[in-house]
Amino acid sequence: MKNHLVIGNKNYSSWSLRPWLLLKVKDIPFEEEKIYLYRPDSKQKLKQYSPAGLVPFFQNSEVKVWDSLAICEYLAEAYPEKHCWPQELQARALARSISAEMHSGFQLIRNQLPMNCRQKMNFQVDSDELRMEINRVNSIWQDCRMHYQDKGDFLFGEFSIADAMFAPVVLRFNSYGIEVGSVARQYMQNILNLKAIQEWIEEGIAEKPVIEQAEI
Amino acid sequence: MKNHLVIGNKNYSSWSLRPWLLLKVKDIPFEEEKIYLYRPDSKQKLKQYSPAGLVPFFQNSEVKVWDSLAICEYLAEAYPEKHCWPQELQARALARSISAEMHSGFQLIRNQLPMNCRQKMNFQVDSDELRMEINRVNSIWQDCRMHYQDKGDFLFGEFSIADAMFAPVVLRFNSYGIEVGSVARQYMQNILNLKAIQEWIEEGIAEKPVIEQAEI
Repeated sequence: MKNHLVIGNKNYSSWSLRPWLLLKVKDIPFEEEKIYLYRPDSKQKLKQYSPAGLVPFFQNSEVKVWDSLAICEYLAEAYPEKHCWPQELQARALARSISAEMHSGFQLIRNQLPMNCRQKMNFQVDSDELRMEINRVNSIWQDCRMHYQDKGDFLFGEFSIADAMFAPVVLRFNSYGIEVGSVARQYMQNILNLKAIQEWIEEGIAEKPVIEQAEI
Repeated sequence: MKNHLVIGNKNYSSWSLRPWLLLKVKDIPFEEEKIYLYRPDSKQKLKQYSPAGLVPFFQNSEVKVWDSLAICEYLAEAYPEKHCWPQELQARALARSISAEMHSGFQLIRNQLPMNCRQKMNFQVDSDELRMEINRVNSIWQDCRMHYQDKGDFLFGEFSIADAMFAPVVLRFNSYGIEVGSVARQYMQNILNLKAIQEWIEEGIAEKPVIEQAEI
């Protein structure tokens, strides 16, 4: 099956990173196509694929599917042997809960700490609301790691969709020097050590386009 | 299995409506517990259940799960005979795509047209961005209905999670007199005709608390 994933700029597109990383880590073959965002012809190019006009977009001979989480759910169904979700029922329910929480929430992290692989600075967190969001991420990572650390390096031991959903946050916190607890810090390092993440970051840094809206 | 769903105010809590409606329409037994939101003790009550401090929250003897979409995915797994997602592969991928798109997007509809069962007015849409979001919803409903109208009254024929995810938008558009095309209008009516939706609206209207932030 020829899997085709349409992504945005690697430097900036946090939503694109999620299914891309899942495909890479789970060793599911795919070809990628990059559409640079915020260019005069970006919308037109995106609309050729996605009715929502958004990246990421995925297609193969059997489906067209868009949105990072929906693509990941499709992959979990299509490749059951890859264990995209944790196999144990409560772990899977928890993985879906935190993935959905990430998918719909954390607006301040999204807006104030945009993903930017090239960025490296110490961001001063001076709003209580942003601090609360950061603390919530820290709690999620810490609680999962405390429960599942014996099973592997990731939130539920083996790498799962939950890790793919949070990987952009790892990159954000790393770029802006956001402080988290030691357990969460180690988890961030486990993500940053992934060969696929290093490949993504390198390509992101090497990209030429600059999106002003994502530079702070 | 004793299913327990924690919800917020029926008048206002759009996120609570989603899994509640799915459970009702699919005739899955559950008991509900309401925690009124924006009260001095609301957060404390919510934290007893949900680490995210949010409604909806669901639990039974085998899982704890939160977030509207994650609860729906759990129910789809736990009750396969209820066909919570469309059974055909491409329809299911599309249902997940639009559900996820709804789950993470449409910020202006969320902020400017808060769900409020008691509300009945003609809202003047004067921003292009809000109009674009409304048009996108209209397109989603229209495209699905055109494809699947022979199979039943809902987005993919039989009622599915996609309908549960969009039901709060139906209530919003109905409250604020938002105009959509005739196909979308008929779909809205099909949702509004559901006995469960009428029950929800009646109870919402009968609730005493007023949340000022959700009144426009």
